[in-house]
Amino acid sequence: MCELLGMSANVPTDICFSFSGLMQRGGCTGPHKDGWGIAFFEGKGVREFKDVDASADSEIAKFVKHYPIKSHVVVSHIRQANSGRVALENTHPFTRELWGLPWVYAHNGQLKGIKKKELIHYRPVGSTDSEFALCYLLDQLKETYAKRPKSQVALLRTMHGILNEISEYGVFNVLMSDSNYLYCYCSTKLCWITRRAPFGVAELKDDDVQINFRDETTPNDVVSVVATAPLTTNEEWNILNKGELIVFKKGEVVAKFR
Amino acid sequence: MCELLGMSANVPTDICFSFSGLMQRGGCTGPHKDGWGIAFFEGKGVREFKDVDASADSEIAKFVKHYPIKSHVVVSHIRQANSGRVALENTHPFTRELWGLPWVYAHNGQLKGIKKKELIHYRPVGSTDSEFALCYLLDQLKETYAKRPKSQVALLRTMHGILNEISEYGVFNVLMSDSNYLYCYCSTKLCWITRRAPFGVAELKDDDVQINFRDETTPNDVVSVVATAPLTTNEEWNILNKGELIVFKKGEVVAKFR
Repeated sequence: MCELLGMSANVPTDICFSFSGLMQRGGCTGPHKDGWGIAFFEGKGVREFKDVDASADSEIAKFVKHYPIKSHVVVSHIRQANSGRVALENTHPFTRELWGLPWVYAHNGQLKGIKKKELIHYRPVGSTDSEFALCYLLDQLKETYAKRPKSQVALLRTMHGILNEISEYGVFNVLMSDSNYLYCYCSTKLCWITRRAPFGVAELKDDDVQINFRDETTPNDVVSVVATAPLTTNEEWNILNKGELIVFKKGEVVAKFR
Repeated sequence: MCELLGMSANVPTDICFSFSGLMQRGGCTGPHKDGWGIAFFEGKGVREFKDVDASADSEIAKFVKHYPIKSHVVVSHIRQANSGRVALENTHPFTRELWGLPWVYAHNGQLKGIKKKELIHYRPVGSTDSEFALCYLLDQLKETYAKRPKSQVALLRTMHGILNEISEYGVFNVLMSDSNYLYCYCSTKLCWITRRAPFGVAELKDDDVQINFRDETTPNDVVSVVATAPLTTNEEWNILNKGELIVFKKGEVVAKFR
């Protein structure tokens, strides 16, 4: 299994604090030693760091932990290999362009038999079931809509249907973004928290760190964090239901589908 | 105008030395202050670093300069914005998947009117003529071949035709890789050098640095470097002709099309 971490914020925000906790689970407090990756959106641009080393030892992870890249959407993943060998091309997040937007995606779980599905427009580069599932999801969206539909509700309904269909193949917890929205689909475990003024102190579960968000934020900041398991010990996290799709924009929940 | 740097090698090789010279041209010895990017292949996986800061000042560039990532194919670019605003989504290299391979591409030059061409499968995310040209090139390859043709000569002949067609719109110096091959197309300026045993000392043009490749290599290493202008002062660089496509694999020239 793998760990997922996502962020949506109304101002460019650094994710050092949450990332710091997540990274400890890669070979230190967790068994996820087979690589990690993080994608930061800046506008429609994506800055991505990946490594096949255990995240707790990775030089690049250390750099990312200490270099506060500010972003409004982040998708991140640490991996324990169970489908596809340990290699850079099998390391999440995966990215494909659809409708002129970069879709960045990370998956927790296993999907037995998913590779029997037919692909039309997209082909996986690596050998994971995860990347195959992304190709299938985008294939189906592209087949349904030649360009992005004007109705966001229509898009989400279609997307939710395809996500449900894929989740029949196994465990399918997903974080995905098209630069604007953060899409979070829960098959077995995913939780989230929205932080806004008055900000308090948060204590990381995996690392001997606490942070006073009051020192790091302005009163108008709204920041939501999504993860496979709560990252802090002294905050109340919301648990997603099985089959639930929740969508964030600028830090706020903008849609929920059950 | 922008600077391009590419590498093809028969063993994973670090490009710190050449990259160090190139980075100086970003805001220091050159006018290319509008961002830079570098992509390293590891198998079919790609590790990419990009920044919109001048490369001579960039924190990430400093990290890349001192962290010797070893790769068998590298594509890199520093940018002086002349089409598309300074933004991460307009920063080379650009990547798209075709036939299950990640095609990484960087372009030097301007292509007036290219955006009038019709696109079928790929859409640009940013607003540069460069990314549009990549979309058009891959579109045409995908239209011609539903999967990668068995004949590499057939593929190269088709690719050369499309590259020539695009170059009618302006200046089109290109470096591109599908993880295996490094494709280099010259519209106005591009040069290359192959280094192999006996290795000697090279002096960087842009930085007060020299390197003795004997200390850095084994006798069987073959490393080719391609750039828009020679990077060293004491070596003989080969100049590509206008309209020439040269292809490297594992450090060696494997094809030339005029």
